[in-house]
This record gives sequence, structure tokens and C-alpha cells, in this order.
Amino acid sequence: MGTPAPLAAALRYAHRHRARFLDDVVELAAIPSVSTQPAHRSDVRRAARLLARRLRRAGLQDARVVATGGHPVVTAGWGNRPGRPTLLIYGHYDVQPAEPLAAWSSPPFRPTRRGDLLVGRGVSDNKGQLLTHVAAVESWLASVGRLPVNVRCVFEGEEEAGSPHLPAFLDRHWARWQPDVAVVSDTRMRDATTPALTVSLRGSLNLELTVNGATTHVHSGTYGGALADPARELCRIVAGLHLADGTPLPQLRWGTRALTESARRVSARSGPSDNELLALARAHRPGPGTVEPGWSAYERTTIRPACVITGLQAGYTGPGRQSIVPSSATARINVRLAPFQDPAVVEEALRQHLRATARAGVRVRLRRLSAAPPVELPTRGPAVEAAVAALRQGFGRRPVLLRSGGTIPVVAELARRRDLPVVLMGFALPDDRMHAPGERLSISCFHRGTRTAVAFLHELGARFPG
Amino acid sequence: MGTPAPLAAALRYAHRHRARFLDDVVELAAIPSVSTQPAHRSDVRRAARLLARRLRRAGLQDARVVATGGHPVVTAGWGNRPGRPTLLIYGHYDVQPAEPLAAWSSPPFRPTRRGDLLVGRGVSDNKGQLLTHVAAVESWLASVGRLPVNVRCVFEGEEEAGSPHLPAFLDRHWARWQPDVAVVSDTRMRDATTPALTVSLRGSLNLELTVNGATTHVHSGTYGGALADPARELCRIVAGLHLADGTPLPQLRWGTRALTESARRVSARSGPSDNELLALARAHRPGPGTVEPGWSAYERTTIRPACVITGLQAGYTGPGRQSIVPSSATARINVRLAPFQDPAVVEEALRQHLRATARAGVRVRLRRLSAAPPVELPTRGPAVEAAVAALRQGFGRRPVLLRSGGTIPVVAELARRRDLPVVLMGFALPDDRMHAPGERLSISCFHRGTRTAVAFLHELGARFPG
Repeated sequence: MGTPAPLAAALRYAHRHRARFLDDVVELAAIPSVSTQPAHRSDVRRAARLLARRLRRAGLQDARVVATGGHPVVTAGWGNRPGRPTLLIYGHYDVQPAEPLAAWSSPPFRPTRRGDLLVGRGVSDNKGQLLTHVAAVESWLASVGRLPVNVRCVFEGEEEAGSPHLPAFLDRHWARWQPDVAVVSDTRMRDATTPALTVSLRGSLNLELTVNGATTHVHSGTYGGALADPARELCRIVAGLHLADGTPLPQLRWGTRALTESARRVSARSGPSDNELLALARAHRPGPGTVEPGWSAYERTTIRPACVITGLQAGYTGPGRQSIVPSSATARINVRLAPFQDPAVVEEALRQHLRATARAGVRVRLRRLSAAPPVELPTRGPAVEAAVAALRQGFGRRPVLLRSGGTIPVVAELARRRDLPVVLMGFALPDDRMHAPGERLSISCFHRGTRTAVAFLHELGARFPG
Repeated sequence: MGTPAPLAAALRYAHRHRARFLDDVVELAAIPSVSTQPAHRSDVRRAARLLARRLRRAGLQDARVVATGGHPVVTAGWGNRPGRPTLLIYGHYDVQPAEPLAAWSSPPFRPTRRGDLLVGRGVSDNKGQLLTHVAAVESWLASVGRLPVNVRCVFEGEEEAGSPHLPAFLDRHWARWQPDVAVVSDTRMRDATTPALTVSLRGSLNLELTVNGATTHVHSGTYGGALADPARELCRIVAGLHLADGTPLPQLRWGTRALTESARRVSARSGPSDNELLALARAHRPGPGTVEPGWSAYERTTIRPACVITGLQAGYTGPGRQSIVPSSATARINVRLAPFQDPAVVEEALRQHLRATARAGVRVRLRRLSAAPPVELPTRGPAVEAAVAALRQGFGRRPVLLRSGGTIPVVAELARRRDLPVVLMGFALPDDRMHAPGERLSISCFHRGTRTAVAFLHELGARFPG
């Protein structure tokens, strides 16, 4: 079966303009749109405006930067034809903090090309992947003059902050958009040549634990031994979040459900081996207390909950030293939730545990920074078929079905509305170092991703009843 | 018995020039001589030079800034008369870091007067106390033309760094100085009207514990659950330094010796009550795991070992958040050692404990930052009698004998040489906030301390065989 002429024209356009599409990634990734750092507030807005200009250049004249209670959402749309399906394209133009800066070999916000790699914060997560869809829209409109489907773009600026304002935003616009399917490109391929559809995401519960002792730092000689030591108490509490065998507290596992044996076999076939997963993290062996009989590393990171300490701070750890009992200590805790767990239930269970194990003499506070539920997506249906066909067009191979340990808050929000089919069709590589220093994008995957996005519009139009 | 004429003349001089002596404290404390912060290296040298000028103005023409492997020592001397005792006056002109700066109500290095208080980093620990002796020397030389004893001043710039170069420095000069007694004013009074002699100090072992996992931060979603979590492992190790009842590991107590019941009764009589001690730290109740049956808070902080976590650092705890598994985590640990404990023995016991409880999958390192043994000083003899008489002259009351939970590394170094009598005669108040934000000096105690230092030279000369 040959490629239909309009699709062929759009693909040709995408190929001819691929260098410029990559330039767009460089330009957008040069803006430090770190949504969680107040100092970058105006950079986030600047990135939103640039993205809106790109959408207009792609032919979406109604592109707008829409204010929310936090950072703005960039929206744009095309088409309202009743006989056609409506596709919601979600992406996020905000990025993780770049710290620690010293660990980057080139400045994080000066995207730098190294062979097939573009290195910079956000190039993969999510600016590069998001822009494949913008490039696809332009390729269709500039070559064919129309899109095969109606399109609604929703590009937010708060994904890395847990998407606090997105649910209300979706509520406000849902009735007008009435999407039939959604696509999100913010996930990984199996490897450089094997594309993947992601079929589940873990949820995420971000907490800040603070222990307060005296009202000020005091001398560790004069008072050490009689006074509350908040850092020590914090360590006791954090250590108590895992059992002696290294598994998380039962409370952190409330609501998990066993997969069927056949589902586990499917997972095991397509996912990385233990050694492969460790190699991707550039680790030589599993961490202490992370080997659990009966569960592979891939399963431990995708269908089992995990509790990670993402930050610790107390007292003074700068050059030299300070002989003090610090007045307070803080831990940041990131609980990743397995499919079917409820973040609210887990949080409440954790609070009960803290109350039950509290000791007098310090004040302990647990603050929720964000919460997003896990999702388990359907693996069949026209949306999945369209994605499979598009990925074959883009990469020349049928995708595998993968489970992700990451979280994209919007996906649960979308999926719970009218059971909207959500396609997670990502072009990142497993070693793209998302969230880490040296984040990078495979340029060839970016180009193939653009081809895939071009083809996806066609395949959806061909398959969907609308 | 009336005051001898030379002493009376020196005391009158000290009284007439007391405002200028206080100005000297302000001037010296305005220099941020933070010995443990490399950025302040030149400030430390500047403070040394200013101190040497003050000593020359006091009449000690041989005052010198002497290089060591680290920060310099300021030395000066007077007299070599064989029939007279030789007094070694020790002090330190370096200070603790001022962080956290936001907790100061006036800039830490702009000493600010508030009623009877002078507020600034180092005004009490140790610049103000040190300068009482410089003022005393000037008062004698300017009014009487001679000192009652031979004097050797040793003012170091690395006390807050654990005095790493002082032992070698003392070795080099000891034979030439041949001191008969030493005085250190770097301790507290009982309260604003009751002077004190300090008769024991705890030792101090400063350690840095580092746990390394992956070579870089990695995504907490993708890898959380399979990879080493250094911050969690650090917390487990730190939590394991205390038993469930809150007392330090037995290893941290190796080498402690019980005091006699009568020595404990003496301590209990002169030391603060539990409530008084907590109030001084501005705490409302004892910390979790710090109440030990049979031991008062004063004893817990003076004759029992303690293990304080002075700092924690891992990952990202800045504004917003970063969803990572950090590659490493660090804790600073300050072990305070009870009289008779040996820092080397305790350190080795701790290392054995860490090896015995280590878990595969992370790399754990323990680095010694400094070590100083505890000291137990004699409570009798001519040096103590001279100090008691001098404190009566300065404060109008007989001093009590106190134990201190703090550490002054030089004292053990001095005391072990020929059993040199060391007098710890401090003019700080218990709420001087040493090492903490808002450090302050009682101006009236400073003036009385100067009177005491003037009288001490006389009393020593009268009592000591030389």
C-alpha cells in the first residue's frame, strides 16, 4: 500500500524543513522556563510567547497565551468540522531546575549540538517532543492546506510543578473543545531504533517534611545532648519510611493491585532487563534495599510504589564547619504510586504513621507540594492503532508497549473525562537524562518523531469515526 | 586588707580607658575572620595584623604575626625575669561562620550596641574576652611601667577550625617560653553576677559522612525503586547512631568514666537546672531521646557524650522542586566527648560500626574534619587561687566551679605539657549566643573581665614561686 498523496506531501515538507524545526527547539530551550523557581517567572512567560509565535507561524492563527492562577497555558486550534475527530495535543514548555549547574559540560540554557545529540535543559522534556507536533501541523497546513483532523493544542507551563491549574483550565474549555482523543509526547522509546507506546504511568506525591527544634541554631557543645536535634529526628523519621528489608512501609503500598500473570509477562518481554536499567542510570548495582524477591527492577520502577528522598537540608554544610544544633531540618519526599493507588489515601496513611510514631520535643510538619494519580491506559482501540501505524511510518518498526515509572499529571486528568483515549507516544531515549544534568535529545529521534506526528494526524483521520 | 598601690593604679587606668577598650572590640569584631571559609582568608590575616597593632599599643613591642601552615598566630611577650612566673595567655581571633545571615537583626560584622549588649559575630567568642587581657597588659604597662609576671601571648586564628596547626606551633616555641601557668578566657560565667572557673571541657570529634549512589542525579520516576537512594541510606545510618531510647550508640560512649558521687554533687550545686538550661537555649522542653534517667540536662551536656547532626545536604531543596534521585548525600556530625574519652578510640569504634552495618549498593565515606580530646582540670593550686582572688576583685563575688560542654582544643594541648595548670576564666554569659545568630557580649561583663585580668596578673605574681 503506497503512501496517500497528501501525507506524502506533508512528509516531504517536514523533511525539507527539518533543520529549521530543530532550530525552533534550540530557540525555545534557550529560555530558562523553570516553573518552580520564582526567579524564572518572566522566563516562563517569555517561553509561552515564543511558543505562541511558533504556532502562528505553523498556521494556527488563534494561538494565545492564556493566563491562569499560575503560569500561562498556550492554546491554539484548527478546524471544527463535525465529520472529523478532534485531537487534543498536550505538551509542556516548562522545565526542571538545572541545578547542580557544575555538573553540566555546556550551559544548560545554551543548547549545544554534539553529533546526533542536542544538550540542554528541556530539549527532551518536553520542548523538543512538543515541537514535533507543531512541526507536523505546519507541514500539513503549508503543503496540503488543511489538517486531517480538528486539533486543539494545550501547552502548559506548570507540568514540572504538578499542573496545579490545569484541571480547572480543562474544565473551563472542555465543552467547547469536545476532544475525541488526546496525544502526549513526553515518554521514552524502548531504545534508539524501537519506538514505544506507554500504557501506564506511576502517580506522584511530593511532600516536604520539616522538623523544628529550638527557635534558632544553638551551640552544639553547650547544648548537645539535652536539646532537640531536628536533623537527627528527621533522619529517624525518614529512615522509618522503609522496613528493614528495604521495602516501603505498608502504608505507602495501600491500594496497589496485582497485575495478571499475562500482563506481567507482556511487561517483562518489552521492558529493560535489570542490568540494562541499571546501566541506563549509570549504576553498577541495585541500591541497598531495592532488590525485592519476585519483582524485576523494571517492575520495581513501574508497577510498584517507591519512596525517594529527593532533597535534605539542615544546618550548615558549606566550606569549613559550624558547631551548632540546627533549629530545623527538611526532607523532600517523592512517593511514586503504582497503578490504582490513590494519592490522597497514601498521604493520609503516611500522616497517621507520622502521628503514631511522633516523639515529644520537636514539631513535625508534612506539607503536600503536589499530587497526581497513576494511570493505566487501554492498549487497544482506534487511537492506539493510529499511533502504531504512525510510529511504523516514522521509525520503520512496530512499537512495543511500555510501562513508565514517571508521572504526567495531565494524563489522569484527561483519561478520567469521558474515558478519553490518551496516546502516550514519546520520542525520548532512555538515556536522555531528563531531570538530570546533561539532558539531551537525539536529533534523529526528533526528526523521526516529527514524521510520526505528521503521520499520526493522517492515521487518526482515517480511523476515527469523529 | 587594702589594694596594693601598683594594682590600684592599673585598675584606675583600666577604668579611665574602658570606652576605648570597648572600641577595640568593635574594631576587631568588624573584620569577618571566619577561619573555616576560604573566602575570608584575607580577612583572617587582616584581623591578625590589627591584633598585633593593638598589642604593640599595649606596650608589647615584639608583637608579631607568625605564619603557620594555615592562618597565622599572633604572638607577643614581655619580661624574662627568672624570679617571676611566666604566664601564657591564649585566645583566638577567628570566628564561626555567621550563617544564616537572615537570622541576624543587625549585620553580624557591624558590631552594634544595644543597651549593655554589643551584638556581632565574635564579640564574645572570642574577640571581646581575648581583648580583656590585652587591655590588662596595657593598664599595667602604662600606669606602673611593668607587669607583675612574665607574659607570652598566643592568639591563634584557627580555633573554630579545630586548631590544626597549634600543637606544632607550641612544640616549636615551648622550650623558649617555658610557661608556668596558662589562662584562657573563652568560657561562660554562671550568670550575670556570678563568675565561674571552668574545670572540665568536652572533647569534640567533627566528622563528615557522605553516601554516594549513581554518578549523577537521575529521574526519580524512571529509577525510583531500583536505584540506590543515597539520602535515604544516609538517614538510615544517621538514625542508627542512637539507640531506640535516644541515647548514643555504646561505641560513642567508649572510655567514659563515672564521676564520684561527691563530684557529681558539686556539679549539681553550681550548674544550671534542667529548666534553666532549656530556657537559655530558648527551648520549651527537652529534645526527643535526650532525657536519660539519672542524668540532669547539665550533666548530659557536660560529662556525657553527645552526638549532634550539625548539617544535612542532599539533592535539591530550593524553591520549587526537582524530581530526582540525588547522586550523593552528606551529613556533618559533631560528637562531643565526655571527660576521659579518647577521640581516636571513638572514631575507630564508629568506623567499625559503619562497616558492620553497611549495605551493598552505595559507597559510604567518613571523613574526620577535626578532633580534640576532653579535659578535666585541677580545682586547686596557686593558679586556681589566683583566679579566684582576681574574679573576686573583678566581680565582687567568689566564682563557682563549672563544667562546660564546649571544646577548646588548645586546653588539652597545654594541659598535657608538663601538667601545666590552665585557668579557664571566662567572661561570657550563658545567653551570649555563641556560634548562633545574634551573638552578643555584655559590656559590663567585658569591663569587669578587664578588671579581673588586671588583678589576675597581680595575684599570680604574688602567689607563684616562678
